[in-house]
Amino acid sequence: MISPRIRRFFDRHHHDAPCLVIDLEQVRANYDAFRHAMPESAIYYAVKANPHPQVLRQLAAAGSNFDCASVAEIEMALEAGATPERISYGNTIKKERDIAAAHEIGVTLFAIDCAEEAEKIARAAPGARVFCRILTDGAGAEWPLSRKFGCDGDMAIEVLDRAKRLGLEPVGVSFHVGSQQTDIDAWEAALAEASRIFVELELRGIRLSIVNLGGGFPTRYLKKVPQLIEYGHSIYGALRKAFGNRIPDTIIEPGRGMVGDAGVIRAEVVLVSQKSADDPLRWVYLDIGKFGGLAETMDEAIRYSIVTHRDDDARRPCVLAGPTCDSADVLYEKKPYELPATLAAGDEVFIEGTGAYTSTYSSVAFNGFAPLATYVI
Amino acid sequence: MISPRIRRFFDRHHHDAPCLVIDLEQVRANYDAFRHAMPESAIYYAVKANPHPQVLRQLAAAGSNFDCASVAEIEMALEAGATPERISYGNTIKKERDIAAAHEIGVTLFAIDCAEEAEKIARAAPGARVFCRILTDGAGAEWPLSRKFGCDGDMAIEVLDRAKRLGLEPVGVSFHVGSQQTDIDAWEAALAEASRIFVELELRGIRLSIVNLGGGFPTRYLKKVPQLIEYGHSIYGALRKAFGNRIPDTIIEPGRGMVGDAGVIRAEVVLVSQKSADDPLRWVYLDIGKFGGLAETMDEAIRYSIVTHRDDDARRPCVLAGPTCDSADVLYEKKPYELPATLAAGDEVFIEGTGAYTSTYSSVAFNGFAPLATYVI
Repeated sequence: MISPRIRRFFDRHHHDAPCLVIDLEQVRANYDAFRHAMPESAIYYAVKANPHPQVLRQLAAAGSNFDCASVAEIEMALEAGATPERISYGNTIKKERDIAAAHEIGVTLFAIDCAEEAEKIARAAPGARVFCRILTDGAGAEWPLSRKFGCDGDMAIEVLDRAKRLGLEPVGVSFHVGSQQTDIDAWEAALAEASRIFVELELRGIRLSIVNLGGGFPTRYLKKVPQLIEYGHSIYGALRKAFGNRIPDTIIEPGRGMVGDAGVIRAEVVLVSQKSADDPLRWVYLDIGKFGGLAETMDEAIRYSIVTHRDDDARRPCVLAGPTCDSADVLYEKKPYELPATLAAGDEVFIEGTGAYTSTYSSVAFNGFAPLATYVI
Repeated sequence: MISPRIRRFFDRHHHDAPCLVIDLEQVRANYDAFRHAMPESAIYYAVKANPHPQVLRQLAAAGSNFDCASVAEIEMALEAGATPERISYGNTIKKERDIAAAHEIGVTLFAIDCAEEAEKIARAAPGARVFCRILTDGAGAEWPLSRKFGCDGDMAIEVLDRAKRLGLEPVGVSFHVGSQQTDIDAWEAALAEASRIFVELELRGIRLSIVNLGGGFPTRYLKKVPQLIEYGHSIYGALRKAFGNRIPDTIIEPGRGMVGDAGVIRAEVVLVSQKSADDPLRWVYLDIGKFGGLAETMDEAIRYSIVTHRDDDARRPCVLAGPTCDSADVLYEKKPYELPATLAAGDEVFIEGTGAYTSTYSSVAFNGFAPLATYVI
């Protein structure tokens, strides 16, 4: 959806290259919606989704905490007004010197998923609080969830036990159900496993207190997605089912769900052509592609909604591609995209729901194209 | 292969983050090898492979021409010492105002693959020379070749005919057999089609003179690849077969083949772990991944050679992944990578053959990680 504020901005400003506009009012509305849907949970905004300083300041002022992937992101969160106790170093893959830097800054909460990482933290951030990430299968998520993060539940028990013996404070379990998760019940199985880990560790004298529910909350692209309030009901129901009357503290880490629908990219059609006289498909080339900010079209995973000035005209399927000389820079081909048959070179297109995972993904200068510019209003 | 010059540089300099080192002497040796293997062809270096100013200056001084994907790349080539007549605007997808800018600069050679692009060029760069790109199937190439560029042969005839009628100078046909092409005979079918187009257009009174053979020349990664001289023999043989005693002028556009083996990335192991107590695979996480310069590991297409200080130790298969919190940032998983069983966090790794398609692919700041730094020696 293109907010009236974004529409006004585009009407008043011309740009020669694609640009992303973020509506801070929508970010604030999304923050409030999370507070309303999951009032018992602490919100840790996933900075990687969009680390623009104004976005971070808006969220810091609203009271958000921050889930950071690197020391640079921790510094950005501090710069935006967060204090170290509102920051989680949520990347399970950290250099020991980066852990030391975060510890020096005053960060006390760290993610781990193996004994090796617990050992690094014990050396570089003695006494820190740690949560262990467990694997989930990611079913129902549109962005592929790999086995990259997390360990199995049995190993998590050993990792947290080891953390305790290393002088750390094991505080809980985290998991991620997969980004752009459209199944509101996707949290249930992982919560049952988290509860089992809580019980097992209590038998060993370790009392966990936090379940980090991760992110996964979707933004609307082409397909309708459930409302946040539905996620809240389902997740809190699953929490009660798993933990009974001993509900732990919970953390959520929305990224896409916080900023996705607050952003719109305006781009330009560079060329419309066919490959042969009898080609049933047109090729539509934009001045933005996989390497200019739309990396999430990888394997056609995220299917953006695209608005044009010709949307009253009849639509025809086309292959959509980016402007670089790279043959892999094709956005939608396996499943062609329906666009107005009258679309022509020079036309503007508006790519909705692009507030998350766009600007910082863009390449520094592939094929000489400048990175995606961002304007925050 | 890590040249002694690169090894000395790494020995003398410490970096906290991954970095790419380019050996200019190797770039020069590669240029000379192309001249030797294909002495009858004009070399247009594909700037997108690595546009570092020192690389471009080295090649400009050696006499190379330049294949540019954007106005920014044209400006870089000029900055490096090339004159406009040594530049080809080889991207078939160009904004009309970019064509005008190139025309203003003095560039006279443009790629097209449809009538629409010919019309833009006729308006923005009247009288320019154009070559039409035709589709090839890309069999034998390791980097996926899509149908993104080029049209079929019959359409190419019409496109060049139309270009003529628009006042342009149709000079020839181009094609690309796919990047990292390991079949030395891959040019043959496209050359036969190019010859057919030459003949058809001559019947219409249009005399073409150039075949642009594109790039595709490989660099050595894990697997051995044929020598350049073998490509030269096969391609010149195919040219004679297709064109008889009326051999056209030819252009080659090496990118990967010119700079790939001149670069080595030094990176660091951040973590080695397992997902469960009985996991047969280790996960090795580096401080560089898909978004930090190794984009060509997409779908595990390019399989780099990785050297460590522990290469005398026994090897075991592992999943190799990058440092970001993105679950898609996994380099090799479907086909695990053999690395020393003793590899541990903090170890250096050297990723060979990374002079092409790395530095400019890297994201501006995904997860807060800085783009790949390049040093040219």
